[in-house]
Amino acid sequence: MIVVMEPGATKDQIGAVVARVKELGLGAHLSQGEERTIIGLVGTPLPPTVDEMLEVYAGVERVVRITKKFKLSGWDFHPQKTMIRVRDVVIGGEEVVVIAGPCSVESEEQTITTARAVKAAGAKILRGGAYKPRTSPYEFRGLGRRGLEILAAAREETGLAIITEVMTPADIEAVHEFTDIFQIGARNSQNYLLLEEVGKAGKPVMLKRGLSMLMEEWLLAAEYVLSQNNPDVILCERGIRTFEKETRNTLDVAAVPVMQKLSHLPVFVDPSHASGKRPYVGPLALAGVAAGADGLMIEVHPSPDHALSDGNQSLTFDEFAALMPRIASVAQAVGRTMATAGEMAAV
Amino acid sequence: MIVVMEPGATKDQIGAVVARVKELGLGAHLSQGEERTIIGLVGTPLPPTVDEMLEVYAGVERVVRITKKFKLSGWDFHPQKTMIRVRDVVIGGEEVVVIAGPCSVESEEQTITTARAVKAAGAKILRGGAYKPRTSPYEFRGLGRRGLEILAAAREETGLAIITEVMTPADIEAVHEFTDIFQIGARNSQNYLLLEEVGKAGKPVMLKRGLSMLMEEWLLAAEYVLSQNNPDVILCERGIRTFEKETRNTLDVAAVPVMQKLSHLPVFVDPSHASGKRPYVGPLALAGVAAGADGLMIEVHPSPDHALSDGNQSLTFDEFAALMPRIASVAQAVGRTMATAGEMAAV
Amino acid sequence: MIVVMEPGATKDQIGAVVARVKELGLGAHLSQGEERTIIGLVGTPLPPTVDEMLEVYAGVERVVRITKKFKLSGWDFHPQKTMIRVRDVVIGGEEVVVIAGPCSVESEEQTITTARAVKAAGAKILRGGAYKPRTSPYEFRGLGRRGLEILAAAREETGLAIITEVMTPADIEAVHEFTDIFQIGARNSQNYLLLEEVGKAGKPVMLKRGLSMLMEEWLLAAEYVLSQNNPDVILCERGIRTFEKETRNTLDVAAVPVMQKLSHLPVFVDPSHASGKRPYVGPLALAGVAAGADGLMIEVHPSPDHALSDGNQSLTFDEFAALMPRIASVAQAVGRTMATAGEMAAV
Amino acid sequence: MIVVMEPGATKDQIGAVVARVKELGLGAHLSQGEERTIIGLVGTPLPPTVDEMLEVYAGVERVVRITKKFKLSGWDFHPQKTMIRVRDVVIGGEEVVVIAGPCSVESEEQTITTARAVKAAGAKILRGGAYKPRTSPYEFRGLGRRGLEILAAAREETGLAIITEVMTPADIEAVHEFTDIFQIGARNSQNYLLLEEVGKAGKPVMLKRGLSMLMEEWLLAAEYVLSQNNPDVILCERGIRTFEKETRNTLDVAAVPVMQKLSHLPVFVDPSHASGKRPYVGPLALAGVAAGADGLMIEVHPSPDHALSDGNQSLTFDEFAALMPRIASVAQAVGRTMATAGEMAAV
Repeated sequence: MIVVMEPGATKDQIGAVVARVKELGLGAHLSQGEERTIIGLVGTPLPPTVDEMLEVYAGVERVVRITKKFKLSGWDFHPQKTMIRVRDVVIGGEEVVVIAGPCSVESEEQTITTARAVKAAGAKILRGGAYKPRTSPYEFRGLGRRGLEILAAAREETGLAIITEVMTPADIEAVHEFTDIFQIGARNSQNYLLLEEVGKAGKPVMLKRGLSMLMEEWLLAAEYVLSQNNPDVILCERGIRTFEKETRNTLDVAAVPVMQKLSHLPVFVDPSHASGKRPYVGPLALAGVAAGADGLMIEVHPSPDHALSDGNQSLTFDEFAALMPRIASVAQAVGRTMATAGEMAAV
Repeated sequence: MIVVMEPGATKDQIGAVVARVKELGLGAHLSQGEERTIIGLVGTPLPPTVDEMLEVYAGVERVVRITKKFKLSGWDFHPQKTMIRVRDVVIGGEEVVVIAGPCSVESEEQTITTARAVKAAGAKILRGGAYKPRTSPYEFRGLGRRGLEILAAAREETGLAIITEVMTPADIEAVHEFTDIFQIGARNSQNYLLLEEVGKAGKPVMLKRGLSMLMEEWLLAAEYVLSQNNPDVILCERGIRTFEKETRNTLDVAAVPVMQKLSHLPVFVDPSHASGKRPYVGPLALAGVAAGADGLMIEVHPSPDHALSDGNQSLTFDEFAALMPRIASVAQAVGRTMATAGEMAAV
Repeated sequence: MIVVMEPGATKDQIGAVVARVKELGLGAHLSQGEERTIIGLVGTPLPPTVDEMLEVYAGVERVVRITKKFKLSGWDFHPQKTMIRVRDVVIGGEEVVVIAGPCSVESEEQTITTARAVKAAGAKILRGGAYKPRTSPYEFRGLGRRGLEILAAAREETGLAIITEVMTPADIEAVHEFTDIFQIGARNSQNYLLLEEVGKAGKPVMLKRGLSMLMEEWLLAAEYVLSQNNPDVILCERGIRTFEKETRNTLDVAAVPVMQKLSHLPVFVDPSHASGKRPYVGPLALAGVAAGADGLMIEVHPSPDHALSDGNQSLTFDEFAALMPRIASVAQAVGRTMATAGEMAAV
Repeated sequence: MIVVMEPGATKDQIGAVVARVKELGLGAHLSQGEERTIIGLVGTPLPPTVDEMLEVYAGVERVVRITKKFKLSGWDFHPQKTMIRVRDVVIGGEEVVVIAGPCSVESEEQTITTARAVKAAGAKILRGGAYKPRTSPYEFRGLGRRGLEILAAAREETGLAIITEVMTPADIEAVHEFTDIFQIGARNSQNYLLLEEVGKAGKPVMLKRGLSMLMEEWLLAAEYVLSQNNPDVILCERGIRTFEKETRNTLDVAAVPVMQKLSHLPVFVDPSHASGKRPYVGPLALAGVAAGADGLMIEVHPSPDHALSDGNQSLTFDEFAALMPRIASVAQAVGRTMATAGEMAAV
């Protein structure tokens, strides 16, 4: 941390900052230039808000944080890439892992036929919402516990692992009973108490990026889970909110390489929420894998025309089956592996 | 709702849309232009996601929603401006109401001296965080229940009403025991289950706007509270996230007149979080009142240099005392009232 | 400028940076902490892109610019507030100056009746576009030179000063012949050659903020004019582009106090373009003045229903006449002056 | 175009809108629902601002534009994909075309060695700025005409086509003398007079997307060129401005498939400006091609440490040579072709 004093800062002003720094148990290293004095803070750990504390002092122009605020999610702390085993799938390894399924679990038939279809096409994990966050209180909010049971039945039938969203601490126990991976949605990405509670539950957590979340904030949100001794966090970029309206959100595809440079956690891309429109799901899925994503999360529905939510961004079974070999080709082109349906059938 | 078909849409495609509309129990009114067919939906209530449902049909170019999605928060439903009485303060009336106090409750002395100071300057409600949402898990998170007790002691001492944030359903009971108004923070503004639970608790709720929340989404979030038969919601604009970095957030001051045109709910402005920097708190407070805000929420701290959070945006007692008469002048200039310290002393 | 090296930076890496700094004719001051080496750059003037140059070196983590890039627009260079006299109006003084008029000059009658009406209500400067930037090439683009002549006739008739936009260097001469103030529109705010050419023309320049322009970039754009020995630049905040769609743009009202803290140049607000909707023009005008704006620019049209552009955000004569006394009240409330129609009549 | 009246709109209000529509030479088709009257406009061409004109009428709630504003850039007008031949390169065909070279032309040696290196790695077109737009007037602005001569010499030497930016109408003649393709930079993307003038010059034009440009505005800007009977426009996505700061801009990779759905014009991606940081250039280049881009524009410099501009985002020769085969692999994976260095040597 460096405190940059204003050009005309007085000796007293500099002294006050130094005194406060010492009060906090840190050392202060002065560097007097021709124009300005710069104070370097020495000692660790720095209190996380020490920059805010010092910015308010008279004569201070800026406080510059040199180190990043996140710890457990960074490479310094954990120099190996995080690999998460869920049933017989490894997330974060060489293989690009595809999660697919309907936005909402609507019925047993809808879910099980979808599970079979996405498995046949090469997906490894089934998604489906039992508890749905909806912008309006008047929309369909999911089947709740019955939805969880249906997901479990689909797992039983197909062998696919399952992932589903949890929205509030009170539901963690029920979701834990059924799910393989907890999903935290974009709107709850800074619901810190939920993050801590889900961290304690001891299963992998997929953390979607918030609509206006800085990448550093995303890692700090992940730390809420990690700091509960739960090392298994998956990051999922699903588009940020910008001025552009041709797509539902703006996929920040650069988040993939940036997060992989900053963190050891696996990074997924959700092209369905990012685009919000079926014709763009495929191109964004391919872009995500080309940029280095460890996996994808794609909405698939047996009959998008009759979906209770997100029909507009859900692929049909045929569209998904046609997309998967293209994803596998791009995965291979960037040095990753992905089993296609044909290869699987051959096994 | 209007469904606009593509220029080359076939009779079958048009028929499929009409069939689906009828399946939903609605009427369909066709209007055939030279180039396109347009289908008007007739009947109420429209399912909230009917636009999403129809957009996926082949041959559909766009679905245009004509009516707004919110109901209880709109003037149609409630043609009188909402006025909320909290102890002896009326929010949403002619008077501009100022809420002031520290970001966090840090100690009894800090809170009570602040309460006295802001009351003397004309504030009517005391703010202070007992449970603090923090971007990083390593930051100060508030005193919890002890913080609530301190706030109550400050109310006892000064007669000011109090407002404090609740972050998770499990804390609602404790907060309810002490607070006069629940505050829902920006990061929880789409934490729908929290909104419903706090709605059930039966005290007024101040709902801060999320960092990237559309105004329509804000009203829909308010509906989660209102639909629990809790009519007392206060909206608070606190800055949105944009590309600009000279201020912490960008105060969307237009939200004040827009929300007042769309809704009967009182609208406040929080110039402290919007600017994040002390020199701009005053100008933004004045701008908010000039734009028609029903009140302000301002951070004040006895010694911002030693604040545990947000010191950089907190006013000192002197700064706050100097600002209040300026706020009162602007309030008067736009036809509102606000008691200043002097007038109060005279009472 | 401070170069922060990575924790594991080698002696050679540090040496390479120091060598490059010396190659640039600057001094390098090393400060070795426990974890990192920090290199301070000494000497002036720093090349403006020295940060970019050094960021690419191996072992460099960050380069932190301490001083702002702008010079002529800052208080250091020019410690008095800039006051610009245009005919008998002073911009940047105690008085809040209102510029008003139609978006486009459409006819002599439309312009002259508007000029009379806005003058009667207290406006001091007449606006009107003769050359119009339009998003689509198929829209009305203004009357050109004929429009300039009409503006001059309106000035002749009413004594109001005039302001009009110039879009390309080739038009500067013609516009210069007629106008009192050049306006540079938001879309040309980083058209640097136009800025330089208009700077050379030797009349005041109003520089609108670009739709996604950082405040620092805005001042740097102003420097293109100022560096041509033209000290008379007026900044005009007209809304930035964000995700919100209830208003045409988002008025960044904080730009007013921030620019006034960073710069001595007068700052105006354009509530018409910021809101894009007539009912919000008034509240945003009042907010701008309350935040400290030196003036306003407001669109007024004799018959907005028939305006060739921007009718939706133009006030009628009556609406403008009703707004002006409210602006004057807020101006007074924040310690400024503004002549109202009544007072003027009394003179 | 559809005019939606408010629920309580009077007969007179409806009549006034209908009268105005007829005044404009259009037909009006009324559709009376239970709650509202909707007026459909019939006849072509609609004046481009007719929506703005009608929105201001009393009793009007919304005006909904059904057709897109752009024409020449859309598929309706031009049902074949635009292919542009520049020397012996075809842009917009099956082959992914890579443009590479330094940000600025700094010297003959720098430019010619770069041209040789990028050609050897498989690039088909050489980029280099002779006229540079710089945020600050104190930065290096390019060699001007001398820069153009150097580019021409590099073309002579290597056979590569060249592309360079033009910033103002006065420079078009000089740039036209040398360049194969005009580049319009992001900051000039709505400099409409420049677009028209460059359209008249009769060579292909690459139009970069503005920092906060809606996709529809981008196509409308292209129409300024196309409407001068110049069919050869290339769109280039180079990142938009958002709140995120880990990258210089946010690559909106979805712009690739969206623009290809809306328009027949070739779409390129510039991963250098989008990321602003060397380690992310490669992943974003691959993402762009995977999403369907017709080509890439990449900054390459013999010694980024000493580049006069954009060194931080320029690849070295080795980095570029290593990236090209990876781009070719992804191109193949999505059904495109791209000659790699090896294959070229084999020819």
